[in-house]
Amino acid sequence: MTDKLQKLKDIFGEVEDLNRAAGVLAWDQETYMPPGGVEGRAAQISTISRLAHARFISDEVGRRLDDINGEVDGLPFDSDEASLVRVARRDYEQERKLPSDLVAEIAHAGSSAQPVWQKARKDSDFKAFAPYLQKNVELNQRVADLLGYKERPYDALLNRSEPGLTTDQLETMFAELKKAIVPLVADIARHADAVDDRVLYRDFDPDAQLKYALNLVTKLGYDLERGRQDVSTHPFSIALGPGDVRITTRVSRGFFNECLFGSIHESGHSMYSQGFAPNLDRTPLWGGASPGVHESQSRLWENLVGRTQPFWRHFFPSLRNTFPEALKGSDEEAFFKAVNKSYPSLIRVEADEVTYNLHVLLRFELENEMLEGTLKVKDLPEAWNARFKLYFGLDVPNDREGCLQDIHWSWPEFATFPGYTIGNLIGAQLMDKIRADIPDLEAQVERGEFGVLLRWLRTNVHRHGRKFTPNELVERATGKPLTPGPWIAYVRKKFGALYGLKTAS
Amino acid sequence: MTDKLQKLKDIFGEVEDLNRAAGVLAWDQETYMPPGGVEGRAAQISTISRLAHARFISDEVGRRLDDINGEVDGLPFDSDEASLVRVARRDYEQERKLPSDLVAEIAHAGSSAQPVWQKARKDSDFKAFAPYLQKNVELNQRVADLLGYKERPYDALLNRSEPGLTTDQLETMFAELKKAIVPLVADIARHADAVDDRVLYRDFDPDAQLKYALNLVTKLGYDLERGRQDVSTHPFSIALGPGDVRITTRVSRGFFNECLFGSIHESGHSMYSQGFAPNLDRTPLWGGASPGVHESQSRLWENLVGRTQPFWRHFFPSLRNTFPEALKGSDEEAFFKAVNKSYPSLIRVEADEVTYNLHVLLRFELENEMLEGTLKVKDLPEAWNARFKLYFGLDVPNDREGCLQDIHWSWPEFATFPGYTIGNLIGAQLMDKIRADIPDLEAQVERGEFGVLLRWLRTNVHRHGRKFTPNELVERATGKPLTPGPWIAYVRKKFGALYGLKTAS
Repeated sequence: MTDKLQKLKDIFGEVEDLNRAAGVLAWDQETYMPPGGVEGRAAQISTISRLAHARFISDEVGRRLDDINGEVDGLPFDSDEASLVRVARRDYEQERKLPSDLVAEIAHAGSSAQPVWQKARKDSDFKAFAPYLQKNVELNQRVADLLGYKERPYDALLNRSEPGLTTDQLETMFAELKKAIVPLVADIARHADAVDDRVLYRDFDPDAQLKYALNLVTKLGYDLERGRQDVSTHPFSIALGPGDVRITTRVSRGFFNECLFGSIHESGHSMYSQGFAPNLDRTPLWGGASPGVHESQSRLWENLVGRTQPFWRHFFPSLRNTFPEALKGSDEEAFFKAVNKSYPSLIRVEADEVTYNLHVLLRFELENEMLEGTLKVKDLPEAWNARFKLYFGLDVPNDREGCLQDIHWSWPEFATFPGYTIGNLIGAQLMDKIRADIPDLEAQVERGEFGVLLRWLRTNVHRHGRKFTPNELVERATGKPLTPGPWIAYVRKKFGALYGLKTAS
Repeated sequence: MTDKLQKLKDIFGEVEDLNRAAGVLAWDQETYMPPGGVEGRAAQISTISRLAHARFISDEVGRRLDDINGEVDGLPFDSDEASLVRVARRDYEQERKLPSDLVAEIAHAGSSAQPVWQKARKDSDFKAFAPYLQKNVELNQRVADLLGYKERPYDALLNRSEPGLTTDQLETMFAELKKAIVPLVADIARHADAVDDRVLYRDFDPDAQLKYALNLVTKLGYDLERGRQDVSTHPFSIALGPGDVRITTRVSRGFFNECLFGSIHESGHSMYSQGFAPNLDRTPLWGGASPGVHESQSRLWENLVGRTQPFWRHFFPSLRNTFPEALKGSDEEAFFKAVNKSYPSLIRVEADEVTYNLHVLLRFELENEMLEGTLKVKDLPEAWNARFKLYFGLDVPNDREGCLQDIHWSWPEFATFPGYTIGNLIGAQLMDKIRADIPDLEAQVERGEFGVLLRWLRTNVHRHGRKFTPNELVERATGKPLTPGPWIAYVRKKFGALYGLKTAS
């Protein structure tokens, strides 16, 4: 490595140290911090975010990036050095448009809004949260204006979270998905009796659930020498460095899915982060390619592995040994069906695979309308409930189970919801390729062997970190551009079979 | 507040945010961080410490301090503003002698050495730890040289941790203590049978211990809205802001003292930190006056409150309800005696009040000799064991229970051990004054009322934060300079009575 590059990497290392420190502060805030810590923590996170941002967008970084161009010009596109300079420059040009004080203000707003949201959700009191959401909308508008866009402010935000994707493209994809999902949901509703999921609502001891889930995700490949599991209100995965990638989960005594599938989901994120190539450490390349690509990893493990027949053929016996009372009379076949029951429901994170993307669509639309000013914050609950009735046929009984359910709008960063759907689509497209490359995947899963699958993901996705945009990554891994086709085919086939629909043929 | 002062306070606020973030990182490292996180965490703490230090010793701070002198000249010595400028200037002049890269190196060394020490202690393997201790000795020597001193390098370090105190003074105090302690220890040994502490080694359920201890310290006044308790190898208290002051503890099934008295001790530290005046927040005045003054608060609650007859008259009944089996046949009188049993033992943190200061003396001497180069690091175990035999009459069976027992030498900051003895002395001197000011203190304690005592400490010690040096604080609170007299009188009286010694009269 040249001296010039090392100098640049020293600065990036410092920025990354600060970002990771902010990560520890955020993790602590959502797990163990006492209530009195809120105000001080907001100041700490705000100061650290401002310093990290200021250092990254400093003139010195710009000069050094200019200065190094010549050195990486001849290198392959995917080399560490060329990728580092390319991605750092993209980040630099984008972030430089935002003043560090605004970044600090955003960090402060997020840290302050979160406990308010938590309480507002608990009390189902949208009015208490509204001023904070209003502030977040305005911050997003300012960010969009500063980043710049041609027609839609959402484009500016989207390009930051999912580089290369536009609002129009997203709307086209969602339209195609909606066309496929809505009749499928109706078809499933007509055959609802085919799947009985009452077994999931029996009595499952919470501690035993946590222990079983943690043990299971280590079998998938989540490395506890470099990770840990804690309990938090809103489950998340957080990457604090190559040796420290954590998951949190929540657990409900009377509903099985929450803890186990939540843990698989978060460990999918964490296995991704544990797989970034070591030589990307402490550079802007150390991270997930985008929220969407991150979500492809969590959803792949959660659904395309964790909600399959071979998976439950392997795990059901040990699960029954752990919960003999609750699982009396059930078997792997019935349990596999139960965890796949599909029906319109109120809560996104509990939604089945078929209806999930409708939840995302709803949020994408509302968030876009708030950003464009066509929907006022105060009118959000009404708009949410009306749209929900339209898409799901359900009446929303209260804001706790409505527009207050997600933590996301307490963060002043919009345009992260679409990542959930993009993740589903990427996951399905990757899985088509994985099945072609690993013909006996199902047999491996049934034997509880996940090493070959994890290695495939490490090789084709994880190790690259942020080298490629989502589109570049999907094309490299699957040979095709991202389309909703594979996902639509997948749900039609799977749920057709589960519910005995004609489309299954 | 003037604009000039506000500008200065903005910078100090930023520095304090960084220091607190480093505190969260350290807390996390000792409680929940996975093993793989060590390397990355060292980099994070190092970067943050360097940035905090660089910001604090920047030319801008120096200019602003010069610039503001005129504004505080007429203000009273103990006013917030005059104290802020005085203490900040003292810190500034001292810290400016240390390059920020050295500060980062020190932070990095501490963070790296700690897990090595932990493993070395577990394995009783001094050789594994020796290179890290060697490094720490050298770092301390560099710091002492940079800070400057007349004759003894220890003076430089001591003046940074306990401003105003010198090595010579310390040696004089220790000599006086040794003269009083050694015959007292011998006298107690001749009457050893007077106190039976076997009850402490019965079976105490760990979870019940933790719960009882946490409940008890909240009754003393530790505020859980602004604090929490966790388990760690080495118990500590850490102040992360006015709303977030935490304790950790450890628990042993077969030895009662560890969890309860450890918790009282750490909550004594934490009540101090929870009592700093709110208007000192995010300034250099927000903190304990020194490690010694901090220790006076922990030891006061642990020993001068927690190891007294009235205390156990109040708490023993509920303790017996919690551990009916273990405490069968004991009573408040016998239990009070048991927790005060005095005998020479290997481990400092388990030592009784009489022998405790000998443990500190031993460390003070050895650390001073390593610093002055008269003791080589490789010879430490031998020197430790020889000196231990001399002072305690005990053979040290292994380094785990010998020179590896304390975490402190894994930190590259010497001259903190003396604080333990200074704390004992200050605590006893404060208690003399408290008893004069609150004549019915014992009756209050026996009723489980600690509010008047806590308010006294808040008023005379806590609220001042770092405004005064240890000597200034002691003089203001007690009207007298610090001397070992009150402590010597206290142990003579207490242990004379406990063991029926002639000195009791």
